[in-house]
Amino acid sequence: MEKFNSSIAYDRHLWEVDVQGSKAYSRGLEKAGLLTKAEMDRILHGLDKVAEEWAQGTFKLHPNDEDIHTANERRLKELIGETAGKLHTGRSRNDQVVTDLRLWMRQTCARLSALLWELIRTMVDRAEAERDILFPGYTHLQRAQPIRWSHWILSGAIAGNPLGVDRELLRAELNFGAITLNSMDATSERDFVAEFLFWASLCMTHLSRMAEDLILYGTKEFSFVQLSDAYSTGSSLMPQKKNPDSLELIRSKAGRVFGRCAGLLMTLKGLPSTYNKDLQEDKEAVFEVSDTMSAVLQVATGVISTLKIHRENMAQALSPDMLATDLAYYLVRKGMPFRQAHEASGKAVFMAETKGVALNQLSLQELQTISPLFSGDVSHVWDYGHSVEQYGALGGTARSSVDWQIGQVRALLQAQQA
Amino acid sequence: MEKFNSSIAYDRHLWEVDVQGSKAYSRGLEKAGLLTKAEMDRILHGLDKVAEEWAQGTFKLHPNDEDIHTANERRLKELIGETAGKLHTGRSRNDQVVTDLRLWMRQTCARLSALLWELIRTMVDRAEAERDILFPGYTHLQRAQPIRWSHWILSGAIAGNPLGVDRELLRAELNFGAITLNSMDATSERDFVAEFLFWASLCMTHLSRMAEDLILYGTKEFSFVQLSDAYSTGSSLMPQKKNPDSLELIRSKAGRVFGRCAGLLMTLKGLPSTYNKDLQEDKEAVFEVSDTMSAVLQVATGVISTLKIHRENMAQALSPDMLATDLAYYLVRKGMPFRQAHEASGKAVFMAETKGVALNQLSLQELQTISPLFSGDVSHVWDYGHSVEQYGALGGTARSSVDWQIGQVRALLQAQQA
Amino acid sequence: MEKFNSSIAYDRHLWEVDVQGSKAYSRGLEKAGLLTKAEMDRILHGLDKVAEEWAQGTFKLHPNDEDIHTANERRLKELIGETAGKLHTGRSRNDQVVTDLRLWMRQTCARLSALLWELIRTMVDRAEAERDILFPGYTHLQRAQPIRWSHWILSGAIAGNPLGVDRELLRAELNFGAITLNSMDATSERDFVAEFLFWASLCMTHLSRMAEDLILYGTKEFSFVQLSDAYSTGSSLMPQKKNPDSLELIRSKAGRVFGRCAGLLMTLKGLPSTYNKDLQEDKEAVFEVSDTMSAVLQVATGVISTLKIHRENMAQALSPDMLATDLAYYLVRKGMPFRQAHEASGKAVFMAETKGVALNQLSLQELQTISPLFSGDVSHVWDYGHSVEQYGALGGTARSSVDWQIGQVRALLQAQQA
Amino acid sequence: MEKFNSSIAYDRHLWEVDVQGSKAYSRGLEKAGLLTKAEMDRILHGLDKVAEEWAQGTFKLHPNDEDIHTANERRLKELIGETAGKLHTGRSRNDQVVTDLRLWMRQTCARLSALLWELIRTMVDRAEAERDILFPGYTHLQRAQPIRWSHWILSGAIAGNPLGVDRELLRAELNFGAITLNSMDATSERDFVAEFLFWASLCMTHLSRMAEDLILYGTKEFSFVQLSDAYSTGSSLMPQKKNPDSLELIRSKAGRVFGRCAGLLMTLKGLPSTYNKDLQEDKEAVFEVSDTMSAVLQVATGVISTLKIHRENMAQALSPDMLATDLAYYLVRKGMPFRQAHEASGKAVFMAETKGVALNQLSLQELQTISPLFSGDVSHVWDYGHSVEQYGALGGTARSSVDWQIGQVRALLQAQQA
Repeated sequence: MEKFNSSIAYDRHLWEVDVQGSKAYSRGLEKAGLLTKAEMDRILHGLDKVAEEWAQGTFKLHPNDEDIHTANERRLKELIGETAGKLHTGRSRNDQVVTDLRLWMRQTCARLSALLWELIRTMVDRAEAERDILFPGYTHLQRAQPIRWSHWILSGAIAGNPLGVDRELLRAELNFGAITLNSMDATSERDFVAEFLFWASLCMTHLSRMAEDLILYGTKEFSFVQLSDAYSTGSSLMPQKKNPDSLELIRSKAGRVFGRCAGLLMTLKGLPSTYNKDLQEDKEAVFEVSDTMSAVLQVATGVISTLKIHRENMAQALSPDMLATDLAYYLVRKGMPFRQAHEASGKAVFMAETKGVALNQLSLQELQTISPLFSGDVSHVWDYGHSVEQYGALGGTARSSVDWQIGQVRALLQAQQA
Repeated sequence: MEKFNSSIAYDRHLWEVDVQGSKAYSRGLEKAGLLTKAEMDRILHGLDKVAEEWAQGTFKLHPNDEDIHTANERRLKELIGETAGKLHTGRSRNDQVVTDLRLWMRQTCARLSALLWELIRTMVDRAEAERDILFPGYTHLQRAQPIRWSHWILSGAIAGNPLGVDRELLRAELNFGAITLNSMDATSERDFVAEFLFWASLCMTHLSRMAEDLILYGTKEFSFVQLSDAYSTGSSLMPQKKNPDSLELIRSKAGRVFGRCAGLLMTLKGLPSTYNKDLQEDKEAVFEVSDTMSAVLQVATGVISTLKIHRENMAQALSPDMLATDLAYYLVRKGMPFRQAHEASGKAVFMAETKGVALNQLSLQELQTISPLFSGDVSHVWDYGHSVEQYGALGGTARSSVDWQIGQVRALLQAQQA
Repeated sequence: MEKFNSSIAYDRHLWEVDVQGSKAYSRGLEKAGLLTKAEMDRILHGLDKVAEEWAQGTFKLHPNDEDIHTANERRLKELIGETAGKLHTGRSRNDQVVTDLRLWMRQTCARLSALLWELIRTMVDRAEAERDILFPGYTHLQRAQPIRWSHWILSGAIAGNPLGVDRELLRAELNFGAITLNSMDATSERDFVAEFLFWASLCMTHLSRMAEDLILYGTKEFSFVQLSDAYSTGSSLMPQKKNPDSLELIRSKAGRVFGRCAGLLMTLKGLPSTYNKDLQEDKEAVFEVSDTMSAVLQVATGVISTLKIHRENMAQALSPDMLATDLAYYLVRKGMPFRQAHEASGKAVFMAETKGVALNQLSLQELQTISPLFSGDVSHVWDYGHSVEQYGALGGTARSSVDWQIGQVRALLQAQQA
Repeated sequence: MEKFNSSIAYDRHLWEVDVQGSKAYSRGLEKAGLLTKAEMDRILHGLDKVAEEWAQGTFKLHPNDEDIHTANERRLKELIGETAGKLHTGRSRNDQVVTDLRLWMRQTCARLSALLWELIRTMVDRAEAERDILFPGYTHLQRAQPIRWSHWILSGAIAGNPLGVDRELLRAELNFGAITLNSMDATSERDFVAEFLFWASLCMTHLSRMAEDLILYGTKEFSFVQLSDAYSTGSSLMPQKKNPDSLELIRSKAGRVFGRCAGLLMTLKGLPSTYNKDLQEDKEAVFEVSDTMSAVLQVATGVISTLKIHRENMAQALSPDMLATDLAYYLVRKGMPFRQAHEASGKAVFMAETKGVALNQLSLQELQTISPLFSGDVSHVWDYGHSVEQYGALGGTARSSVDWQIGQVRALLQAQQA
């Protein structure tokens, strides 16, 4: 039972913030007249000693040290005697637990945020360098229209962006500028934990989708990208294989992280108000998710920064039928309603399939049997570069639009550093 | 298969925002020179007609109307002819789906937000009216210290408050003042859906905990509160019973709502980028959760506003042993370190238990065998009203602190109305 | 509140089993002497009338009919008078709810089971017909070794098989040959619901993986299979596209179904024993999941039975490097330890890559620089048909092994029919 | 990346089964003629040495030991030289991983099963010893009818029972008497993991409900039971409190365990067939859940075996209104239809409430104003012992029925030992 109850095995992570919190609290006690100046100084000095022992790895846990808070208090008493007993005047362990965890999460969110921005920076750097590479855009995993490779990269980087906003929210919540409004609620609610776990789950969902894309793009069949050796692994059985283990692990962690979020919400469901020991579950969840996110973000940054692009294969994957929508737009510009133009273009696709030729191999006469609006200038449609340049609206895949997106993300990065 | 593929059974909810979106889009087409002024007017007029039919319940669905978008377009064509075909120039159904859903959620979030504020208002009104009622505060469901009933109410109302912040976030996301940065990401990501479902899950988790408290407080054993008949149900078998069905249903919905959030995240996990039909799952989740939240918030408001308080039972549940911490503080004020005072108070509790008397029945001599610091003024400790008044720090259970909390929540309510 | 409390909107599904259960119960009452023979006959006759009205769609719900049980009882009383009031002697509505749901699930499990077997039969039929088609086996989505197409099909069919076992378990639980051991537990536990939802979740997880494979195999890049038009959908924007909507919907439903399972377990967590209104959540979950499973199994059967196989593309996707493991085994047969042979084969792969030739284009001399054990008979290694025939162990991809698997599944199908 | 990829930190748990599996495999290789008898003996001897080093804690991990399988193979090679390289002929690491995990789970299921039976035995022992204690049965947490305390205990013990059945299923799956039917499926599916995690989730859901009951029964307000000191914890702030930490932790673990189940299913969703590195997530989930279940079952056994029952408080909580249903049955026995009798009894409850007396204080005349069927023998209704004895049907709360339940569970326990 003691082992079941004890949390020291994992909450020792909190040693630093526990000391930090206790130092602040002892200053509060002195101000309230519950400690003399001399007592406070003794306590502060003792707590610095405790922190030093942790930092140097010389802190010795006793069998009765049930959690980090009792361990630190026990050691403080050994170091400075009975005065240590005054430190806990008017605060409960539940207060301490929740304060420590909030402090720790402030640190951890800052750290994860930096890693996330590093990933975004890596992505936008590549997006800028590789703006001229075209390849197929897919919906339903079917080739849809030609797009810039940078457009794909930015679709991931931008998905990462709202996360930054959430982090701001968390940071605002954690900076303690605002006080919690109600003492019962303060020890009872774990919104800041649930929101962190959900942020991580949503972030991992995005990364799992990026990983899925890159795993596909790296198959023999797609051959658009190649993982660097550092992020792939050989097979124990098949000498010719290189497996995208890094990306598969990133994809898999979405499940693990979400599982922690699901677990915490289930633990909270129907719990009576104020503190119940059930809430102890929050810490291991937060620690594990923090470690996982930290590893995933670094590996993702490494994968993206070392990824090799096969631009010839990307170009070869473009095919005239991907310009069928452009063909419809050609007719729209000549005055045909879109629905009719879509139908006419569909007829052209069918005609080409039936004749066993590429869409751009249909002769002008053949096209004119579908609509008399086709004329010699239809040949301009068959230029992939021309195709992507049409999508110049903000958010589109034209060079100018991609440049604008890069600019937007760079502005976020700079705002972040300031 | 057609039935499996079709979404009209539930996405008809979107008729109004679909028309709204199409009207805006036709104005955009006119500005871009892709519609003449006359064509646009015809389309706008036709769309108003479509909306009118929906509003009056005369819109007739055809077997081929796969979703709300094709239904509205089909009907528009019947009404205004081929010009209808121009409306979809340059936008895909995936664009339409995601725009419609964002518009719908903007409406729904505003509606749910109003219901949530109504609940909070109801709670703060009661908190204000019933400030003088004391009852036991519990941690671990064990009686801990006397608190004001209002303090408990506000712990729920305040837990509701951060949700308002989230809603702001959502509203900001949905007001379309900002454009999405990347066209691939725009049809592919469902963060706004996931965040809505998570907000609802977290809100329901809070409400499930409030429901649990009220169910307990309403048992024969606690008898602190009594549900009005409108929110309780008789037993089909046992004539003497009144069951708190309303609160049990609120508690249970936390599971259902979270299940939808879990389901969506699992659907998103590992999905290739851009649109995949998998994303169609978002809508039923959002519609069901919106309906559930709307019902739950209204029932919760009704429960709270009609709840009967048994203030005598609350008073009787207070017992001297709940003042043991105050007894320790008494010694702290006389100069004893808290840890020793806690121990001394514990000895007094044990002594009283051993003698079979209440803690406040111990004589001064008996107390002095534990510590010579006890003197005649210890009698002041045994006043519950005095006890709660000690907790005057912001967030505490003193009258002044509870007033301050009420003021804070009222300020939020006013800010909300402005 | 009435609307919130009411369940008639969805539990009307239970009309048939509710009548069935009440008929059985009235026979029990007669046997116990609590009904005369004449009263029982009147009740049985009245219940038949109620059932007839439901079957013919003439049953009229009243505003006060809170659930199917009160509706049927109300109607029975209208039909046969006060005797109806005796039917509920000694049973509570909670008993009725749980009995009805068990009866309904017995029906639904039988129906879903039949659909599942139909899917398995479809798969094994194709597996038998297409045994001679070879294509790449993948691990990590990297081409690994040549396998038979039938081997892939059976990996799905067999994954379906254990589900049959679970169903047996459920059926056994539901056949009421055994009675529940404890009256409190009987109305309180929902294991049979949770297990059904979990079975469905696990089944959907398998189907989501099969769908993922087929979506990939159907991309332009893989081009191994082609969905029939009935199970794919055109694009509203891009005329050349056919999207695998059916498979994407199957994949997406894994999330929805699991969400229901997660929601129920969260609802159950920490619930006090015996009946609480929270348990009302079980029914909508079961009804929705049953409908979803029914649709998914039928669509999956349709997809598989109409799927077109591109056997030439499959053959072309085989490449000599996929025989690198076979090359290692060649050396093992000549006496080299496997780890060394694996290394030697890896060297050959590297040599071929460096020289820019296929692995089977290396000359014997070149191979002998890697190991003197290579001799003329190495040419046999380069035959794909020969390669798959090596894997003759039960469960392998050799023709004989695949035949054995087909036989095993056919035996299960026959056992099922008996 | 190496750290991200490596699994040795947790899969070292598998050392014993890895050696066990390799010994079996080397025997297979000898039989297939791929190892000579002498080579096999060397390998077997070497593997025994490896196992010995693990058992004695002298096995030294190298930085390159990525997982337990490479670690053991590396050490074997150091011990017996190149022959070690032959051990992996024809098996992939994926085969090894899944075989090891199945072997480990067979052990762990046996261990958990023993702990579960121990808990059930403890419960049935108490149920037998305390058959004569009556207390209120609750539905909706409202007092319903008098029941035996043993009846409550058995409702938990019996809920535990179906789990035994599931375990049988698992054991059957794991005993390897049956082979997996398809080699692709064998490395790809993780049904045995998912089912184990779901079994644990469902088991924990039951235990969370039992914990909730006991936490309530242990409140000051209920005062039915008292946790032994070994399973409760004092407060750091409030000297008078004893918190049911053990039960709260049990309740909370339901969330954690289910989170692991949810996480695994999300990881599996949409995964391409055969092995993907994502599957590596299975192990930590299984190890953590196994440890949690082991601790929870032992603590639950300890809690139940040391729980103190306050039989006087239980008796005092019984009140005449809980016999209202019996009062209705009294009228039913006199010939009144149940619905009328229920109404008549309800009138009596209302009359007693109005008059401010207990239900059994109503005079015969007063009762006869409600129904002339009341006569002198109604006084028998007011005996709680008589009330529970009515429920003699199997599964009921009569002494004979409780004895029968005890017998049934004892029979299961004996069958288990045989």
